[in-house]
Amino acid sequence: MDSGKLLTDKVADDIVRTIIGRELKPGDKLPNEFELASKLGVGRSTVREAIKILVSRNVVEIRRGAGTFVSARSGVSEDPLGLQFLDDTTRVATDLLQLRFLIEPRLASLAAGNSTPEQLAEMMQLCDACEKKMLAGESFAEENTSFHAAIARASGNVVVPNLAVILCGPSSMMPGTPSQDMRRELARTHREILSAIAARDGMAAYDAMLLHLAQCRRSIAEQSLR
Amino acid sequence: MDSGKLLTDKVADDIVRTIIGRELKPGDKLPNEFELASKLGVGRSTVREAIKILVSRNVVEIRRGAGTFVSARSGVSEDPLGLQFLDDTTRVATDLLQLRFLIEPRLASLAAGNSTPEQLAEMMQLCDACEKKMLAGESFAEENTSFHAAIARASGNVVVPNLAVILCGPSSMMPGTPSQDMRRELARTHREILSAIAARDGMAAYDAMLLHLAQCRRSIAEQSLR
Repeated sequence: MDSGKLLTDKVADDIVRTIIGRELKPGDKLPNEFELASKLGVGRSTVREAIKILVSRNVVEIRRGAGTFVSARSGVSEDPLGLQFLDDTTRVATDLLQLRFLIEPRLASLAAGNSTPEQLAEMMQLCDACEKKMLAGESFAEENTSFHAAIARASGNVVVPNLAVILCGPSSMMPGTPSQDMRRELARTHREILSAIAARDGMAAYDAMLLHLAQCRRSIAEQSLR
Repeated sequence: MDSGKLLTDKVADDIVRTIIGRELKPGDKLPNEFELASKLGVGRSTVREAIKILVSRNVVEIRRGAGTFVSARSGVSEDPLGLQFLDDTTRVATDLLQLRFLIEPRLASLAAGNSTPEQLAEMMQLCDACEKKMLAGESFAEENTSFHAAIARASGNVVVPNLAVILCGPSSMMPGTPSQDMRRELARTHREILSAIAARDGMAAYDAMLLHLAQCRRSIAEQSLR
């Protein structure tokens, strides 16, 4: 693989190493084109090309007139699992849910044991925001992903937060929208997960997440029947 | 996000839609630059830029003098979870393994129920190839990932094969190498997983995968002690 890599790809990797080496965090500014070019021993046009690649990988973002900054998306690309190539959207939603059944109950139980007070406060806030949208009949995809990603972060596993973004992301959503009854159930089970985590009750958090996912499965089934 | 997208990113998305629309499979040739430019109503240089982005996302690959082809990596990028930004490699390996404990036993059990004769033959071949490298004291990372990805494919879940590539991929490997004793254990437990799947015994496949992962955990522990 490496031998076939283009120069711009190699320079893109070098820039990533620079970000890691300088411990730049999301929102931090990168060295300018001129500095990068001289540091990496390549032309400025190659640096520009490499930065375009890193933009498309969500590693950096360009703010016009201000420079290039480390992206908040931490290098998680738009469609990391290539799900856009699977054209049966109901199948993708169902199979993503199957995966969530394997992973998320245990994460909720880990979060009950490991979450810090700050993480608990964040989960409460995100649960509220998501519930508000759910009950108002609005789209809650983004708030929902944020809530589940916060639980994943609170689990203490460093790999899963980025994975949660995929599992609960756009591909997991059906083209339709849940009924008002279903929205109430989803909001209610979210709150049960949160209460169990706050009570440091790992077993209850596990069970509450299972129940929530079972409701998600019902929601998908209802929507595919319509 | 969409409003800030560069023209080249939009054209890259259009090319992906073309690949999906024409049902092009890995190894199939893309329409040439001229045809793409006229179909998408943009200049050839924009098409060239967009193709570079798709190369870096492993959606397509360029074969010099032959053209642009759909990549066998199905759009799974090099580091889809942004694991390169997590600098504690032992921690990443340990946490990836924790995830594998949640997912892979169930996949093995699904594979016991769902695998076709062709998939079984493939798993046998990959198990042999991996065992050969393991026992010869050579690096077996690639063969190992292929074997686990084949089990994931045989599970029937359309999402997990691409995920297996991440879970068992380079980041899950310690910088060191397992001892000869450990290699024998890993090869033996691989074979037990395969036998259980071939015998259509889902429970035994589940347990064999658990035992294999427990050996992987030991292997990581041994390597971090050295």
